[in-house]
Amino acid sequence: MTVPSVVPLAHLNGKVEKHANGTTNGNGSHEPLHVLTGSEALRRIREGSLTVEAYARALLNRIQAHDAAVKAWAYLDPAFVLEQARALDRVPAKERGPLHGLPIGVKDAIYTKDMPTEHNSEIYKGSFPQVDSASIMILRDAGALIFGRVVLKGKTVTTEFAAITIGPKTMNPHSPHEIRSPGGSSSGSAAGVADGQIPVALATQTGGSTIRPASYNGIYCIKPTWNAVSREGQKLYSLLLDTLGWYGRSVSDLVLLADIFSLEDDEPSTFNGIRGAKFALCKTNNWHKASEATRQALARAAALLKAHGAIVEDLDLPPSFEPLTDWYLTVLETDGATTFLPEHRVARSKLHESLAVFIDKPAYTRKQTLAAQDGIAALRPEFDAIASQYDAVLTPSAVDEAPYGLEYTGDAVFCADWTALHVPVVNIPGFQGPSGMPVGVSLVAPRFRDRHLLRVAEDVGKIFESEGGWKSNIL
Amino acid sequence: MTVPSVVPLAHLNGKVEKHANGTTNGNGSHEPLHVLTGSEALRRIREGSLTVEAYARALLNRIQAHDAAVKAWAYLDPAFVLEQARALDRVPAKERGPLHGLPIGVKDAIYTKDMPTEHNSEIYKGSFPQVDSASIMILRDAGALIFGRVVLKGKTVTTEFAAITIGPKTMNPHSPHEIRSPGGSSSGSAAGVADGQIPVALATQTGGSTIRPASYNGIYCIKPTWNAVSREGQKLYSLLLDTLGWYGRSVSDLVLLADIFSLEDDEPSTFNGIRGAKFALCKTNNWHKASEATRQALARAAALLKAHGAIVEDLDLPPSFEPLTDWYLTVLETDGATTFLPEHRVARSKLHESLAVFIDKPAYTRKQTLAAQDGIAALRPEFDAIASQYDAVLTPSAVDEAPYGLEYTGDAVFCADWTALHVPVVNIPGFQGPSGMPVGVSLVAPRFRDRHLLRVAEDVGKIFESEGGWKSNIL
Repeated sequence: MTVPSVVPLAHLNGKVEKHANGTTNGNGSHEPLHVLTGSEALRRIREGSLTVEAYARALLNRIQAHDAAVKAWAYLDPAFVLEQARALDRVPAKERGPLHGLPIGVKDAIYTKDMPTEHNSEIYKGSFPQVDSASIMILRDAGALIFGRVVLKGKTVTTEFAAITIGPKTMNPHSPHEIRSPGGSSSGSAAGVADGQIPVALATQTGGSTIRPASYNGIYCIKPTWNAVSREGQKLYSLLLDTLGWYGRSVSDLVLLADIFSLEDDEPSTFNGIRGAKFALCKTNNWHKASEATRQALARAAALLKAHGAIVEDLDLPPSFEPLTDWYLTVLETDGATTFLPEHRVARSKLHESLAVFIDKPAYTRKQTLAAQDGIAALRPEFDAIASQYDAVLTPSAVDEAPYGLEYTGDAVFCADWTALHVPVVNIPGFQGPSGMPVGVSLVAPRFRDRHLLRVAEDVGKIFESEGGWKSNIL
Repeated sequence: MTVPSVVPLAHLNGKVEKHANGTTNGNGSHEPLHVLTGSEALRRIREGSLTVEAYARALLNRIQAHDAAVKAWAYLDPAFVLEQARALDRVPAKERGPLHGLPIGVKDAIYTKDMPTEHNSEIYKGSFPQVDSASIMILRDAGALIFGRVVLKGKTVTTEFAAITIGPKTMNPHSPHEIRSPGGSSSGSAAGVADGQIPVALATQTGGSTIRPASYNGIYCIKPTWNAVSREGQKLYSLLLDTLGWYGRSVSDLVLLADIFSLEDDEPSTFNGIRGAKFALCKTNNWHKASEATRQALARAAALLKAHGAIVEDLDLPPSFEPLTDWYLTVLETDGATTFLPEHRVARSKLHESLAVFIDKPAYTRKQTLAAQDGIAALRPEFDAIASQYDAVLTPSAVDEAPYGLEYTGDAVFCADWTALHVPVVNIPGFQGPSGMPVGVSLVAPRFRDRHLLRVAEDVGKIFESEGGWKSNIL
């Protein structure tokens, strides 16, 4: 077990007994357990053919083997994980919750009572708020195994003395020979899920921090409707933008958590398969930023939907949407100035320059802030009305394949508008860029049509995964 | 020192040495220090005529003498307070922050790293998140003395077995012979400030939890523009409504914290005194709920402003504002259903029935939720435009004097609309009801005109305090 150097806690030094129960599934077969989706693992645990401990041990072994290369974890205590797994195995069947034994990775921005939460920031080094976030309370109550804390992107911070780099730099697991970003800021969550180190992980999005890494790592995710799931205990950036989301390697794993979080539409979806379904192809006002990889993925996605009998119509948003991305930036910066004032006061030099500047040199007046807030608010019902004419809106997830290197985690421009509009978004993997890296596309629905969107994503995902042209070769 | 029975922690048993340094101010005179405003205490500390320790000791003695009657504190460790006070006294003058030595009471819904935060709920009994909220980080950095945790209203909770009452029930200090509510939910904050136990205290408001108790306790408070001060680390109820506020016994004490929290308008106020100033008298669509006490206070307030040369015009809000209070209730309940889902899952029986019902029987569809959110969002700029034609809008703070008994903390209906509109509100004391209890009135301004509003409140407060007819007789 590689110990992430950023967390100098003594009990991180616990070791997994190498190969003990290794990658066997408890049945004596040698099918690797880490490739299972969460839904499949839960099924086996439920029917008694897999113990929580054996599953946890298989994941710990996977992590042990890959951590040096991927560096997805900010905090992991293998002995504590196994202790909790054994405790779950002792719970009688009739007392088990719906997620009994499901291992979940937690982004280092979400409080968990039994682990430190450091936001990958020098300011919060050693910070250990002994309280569960709302999402963790709900997951724990459902029987989930809160596995460890995954890396929030390694940040470059300026100290009084020099520019230093803190935290492990998570690598994109699909690019072992050239260093590529996993995206940010939900870096560890996305890389860990993509690499089979964990089936499901929590993420957050203020711009494109959930969707973009999913695209770069070839996995599914949902950024649900804003405020459909409580954000309590999740580090604030922007009240109006921050949204909790989650990653999985299948739509059914996204549904598992949607059920537990009571993500409900008013009415059941009437979606009845791709044939005859109606999609909008929305290139957005930021299309000029789309790379060839993104253009090809979107074109191929539309072509596949048409080939399977769907109607795909171009959607140009009305002129009222033109200021949307600028308004988004205004809200982001002005909310950020409110949010990061405490850190700015306490340790200006340890706050990332890109955040400190919001307070040093406010770029917007209060009047501009309100115009942006009110302007976006007026667009939300307008977009809902447009999107409700389609089964889903098809749109880019990112501008390109994952960027080279680790300093730059990519452009969130194709996610920002949807974040501001509070609408649910699902990333569907299946396409690839010129260098063979995964490229995803987004499906978008009106606010509080999350379950409908997941239903559509299930069918769309099957097509894109099998015919899109990209397959993961690391599982 | 009476130990609040709700917090059975061993180190609460610390005693203040009785009369040690008693109510002397360190200069040998016997003027009681607990009557000082925070601004005056800070001035003395700054000029060296008062030590932080002597001031803290005077407040602890006041608390010791009155705690049995008022019960404002949920957690207080006198020895720790004095230890911190002495540490502050050792800080060299040039290293002192602008609030150096200012004691602050913290509502039991806001995280402080050195005290438990229990939300006056059985579910969080013993919960001790070792992290500071954003507001506490900022105040501590400015040198404030984080004094103790004041009571969030004592709630009646239903257990599996019986209806029991938990937590101390804070009393209204102005009614020693008949039991009266201090209002809620910032009960301890308001009562503690009114009774001279603490000069300044933090509060929160989702409906009328800051403004209403200020009216009942005859003190000043500000509920600033929504999201002008970070809410990080403050228990969530509604993302769109919750607002951090604070109490003081003078407008200048409200300004102290406004400065520290960087509460800034775009432009300096052009308000130039009451003579010639223009006020709107807004009875709101809920006027039929106003008691005679409230009607008389508002009439007298308007008459005094006129007598001092102000123009006071009746303001009837346009018909578009008619659904506002209903929309507010929709947002409150639907946000509450998201927020309290974790507690509902973990301990339904320990969650207050009035909150549990949001999840048991949702009263609104998603469509209704969005209509309310979007409807209120559209009214915000509309109200700003109306309010910007006046120096301030004069409106009731509460429906009546403080209610008898402690079960009912009063009706928030006169605060809810302003909370939903995100506008700043200041309560001004000075009037009294038929039974001699204090009655306040509210001044309201457009969003992000907080500093202008405080400027107006300063002059209005002088008039209402001296000519309104009510004076505190407990200080």
